[in-house]
Amino acid sequence: MPSVPTVSDQAWVTLATNDTYALGALVLAHSLSRARTSRALVVMVAPQVSPGIREVLAEVYNEVKEVDVLDSRDEANLALIQRPELGVTFTKLHCWRLGNYNKCVFLDADTLVMQNCDELFEHEELSAAPDCGWPDCFNSGVFVFCPNEQTYQDLLNFALSYGSFDGGDQGLLNLFFHEWARKDIKNHLPFVYNMVSTAAYSYLPAVKQFAKDVKIVHFLGSTKPWMHNFDPVAGQVTVKDAVESFSQGFLQTWWDIFASDVLPRMSAGEHADLTHA
Amino acid sequence: MPSVPTVSDQAWVTLATNDTYALGALVLAHSLSRARTSRALVVMVAPQVSPGIREVLAEVYNEVKEVDVLDSRDEANLALIQRPELGVTFTKLHCWRLGNYNKCVFLDADTLVMQNCDELFEHEELSAAPDCGWPDCFNSGVFVFCPNEQTYQDLLNFALSYGSFDGGDQGLLNLFFHEWARKDIKNHLPFVYNMVSTAAYSYLPAVKQFAKDVKIVHFLGSTKPWMHNFDPVAGQVTVKDAVESFSQGFLQTWWDIFASDVLPRMSAGEHADLTHA
Ligand SMILES: O=c1ccn([C@@H]2O[C@H](COP(=O)(O)OP(=O)(O)O)[C@@H](O)[C@H]2O)c(=O)[nH]1
Ligand SMILES: O=c1ccn([C@@H]2O[C@H](COP(=O)(O)OP(=O)(O)O)[C@@H](O)[C@H]2O)c(=O)[nH]1
Ligand SMILES: [Mn+2]
Ligand SMILES: [Mn+2]
Repeated sequence: MPSVPTVSDQAWVTLATNDTYALGALVLAHSLSRARTSRALVVMVAPQVSPGIREVLAEVYNEVKEVDVLDSRDEANLALIQRPELGVTFTKLHCWRLGNYNKCVFLDADTLVMQNCDELFEHEELSAAPDCGWPDCFNSGVFVFCPNEQTYQDLLNFALSYGSFDGGDQGLLNLFFHEWARKDIKNHLPFVYNMVSTAAYSYLPAVKQFAKDVKIVHFLGSTKPWMHNFDPVAGQVTVKDAVESFSQGFLQTWWDIFASDVLPRMSAGEHADLTHA
Repeated sequence: MPSVPTVSDQAWVTLATNDTYALGALVLAHSLSRARTSRALVVMVAPQVSPGIREVLAEVYNEVKEVDVLDSRDEANLALIQRPELGVTFTKLHCWRLGNYNKCVFLDADTLVMQNCDELFEHEELSAAPDCGWPDCFNSGVFVFCPNEQTYQDLLNFALSYGSFDGGDQGLLNLFFHEWARKDIKNHLPFVYNMVSTAAYSYLPAVKQFAKDVKIVHFLGSTKPWMHNFDPVAGQVTVKDAVESFSQGFLQTWWDIFASDVLPRMSAGEHADLTHA
């Protein structure tokens, strides 16, 4: 059973549109639980997430919320069918509809919480950490927001009018919340709350200097933690290439949680399916 | 003759410790002059910069200031001899000794001004743009500062006590001005004032979206503009590899200025020497 949050009107929110990303969501939730968060845990799932995985998700998430990207009863969605590239964007936007909560922090399913971060709920919408590629944009893997149906509608209309400059949610959210860059430093989350694992390629000395302060790691990019090889006997992850060795410690933490908190809760059938996804 | 600045107590400052970096400083000064800056231009040169190049520098810079890294009459410098890795750091720090100016903007010699940026002088010390690698650090290729002998001494003492986490000026300046990350958004210069040419590798859609707003390009990294091949007949730069093609436009501007504003002012002998440096 998921633990009962002591602050029930605030939640951590993530998204898994398929069973593979659900693995990330499971490790993420257990990392939050290990860090003894006092907030609720919510995962939004797409219809194709399997019933078995939903059950495992429900053991650690307070709420497993189905969201339907292409629900034909939704006029706004119908319009979006003309814009297939906005599909995933739209799915993440659903988080603004979680009306049971006043304030939330969205976390990508490929993030991992290293230390308690409940202080993030002291920030206002929209707070996020700078993106490494273009630091006047925020990275949309971790952001503080306030669920609100009007904001959701405004975002949808904005998406239909302007689209997203990168085809994803990050380009859209940065255009919509364009004040982020210059308005208030309090909306700039410290980089340790969204430490992308690619940072070490560009500025290794800084990563070494600040590594101990890292609160949330984000395994941004195409190689996700669940794609690495893990030796279940030795309990060790093998990194695919040498340049990734700096993030080995973080990857090992991810796999430690997967092996001890996630795997035992999955049925044999699901396990076999998933590790070959 | 350099143009007479209308705001004479404020200056753009750069550094060239050798004749090769002086090429960058020359193009930089002409880019500032083309953008009709109203501020003075100052270049700090190390003793090994040749007399011929100093003369060419003096045609566009209002002040060519010799700075001596290992001046044995300077006690602080003597102490630094024990810390050879801080040598270049120390040289940049000399900018705080330019007592003729109240406020300055330091620009690396590998930067290029694309549009008038005089509004930078409205910012306070220490203002700088985020570094792409670790965006809670600022990049020390472009920063607003106020010359002050005491700050210089404090920086030196700080360098002797704590060193620099990256062995360069950026690591030192970020430790010294550690408040930059969280204090005031006004100290965060927009990224377009220090657009590093590596940004396109990590977030090309953003570079495309914001390229027209770029004010200062920074050719950060080991391949400097003067290392590319330039066809003097066609007036075209040839980029060394395909991944750099996005920055071709900026490189072409660098070479246009070099060919039309710098090269004609150099004597034949210096020209032959320099393009093979
Ligand atoms: O097929 C997908 C792709 C993405 N996501 C969700 O959208 C987030 C953003 O995608 P991703 O993390 O892969 O992008 P990156 O951070 O690498 O840019 C993921 O973390 C998931 O929460 C998902 O559920 N299914
Ligand atoms: O041998 C050197 C190295 C550096 N510099 C000065 O120090 C700045 C910082 O070095 P660089 O731009 O090479 O570092 P990067 O920006 O690539 O990290 C240069 O732009 C120059 O102004 C110099 O004069 N001589
Ligand atoms: Mn992600
Ligand atoms: Mn530089």
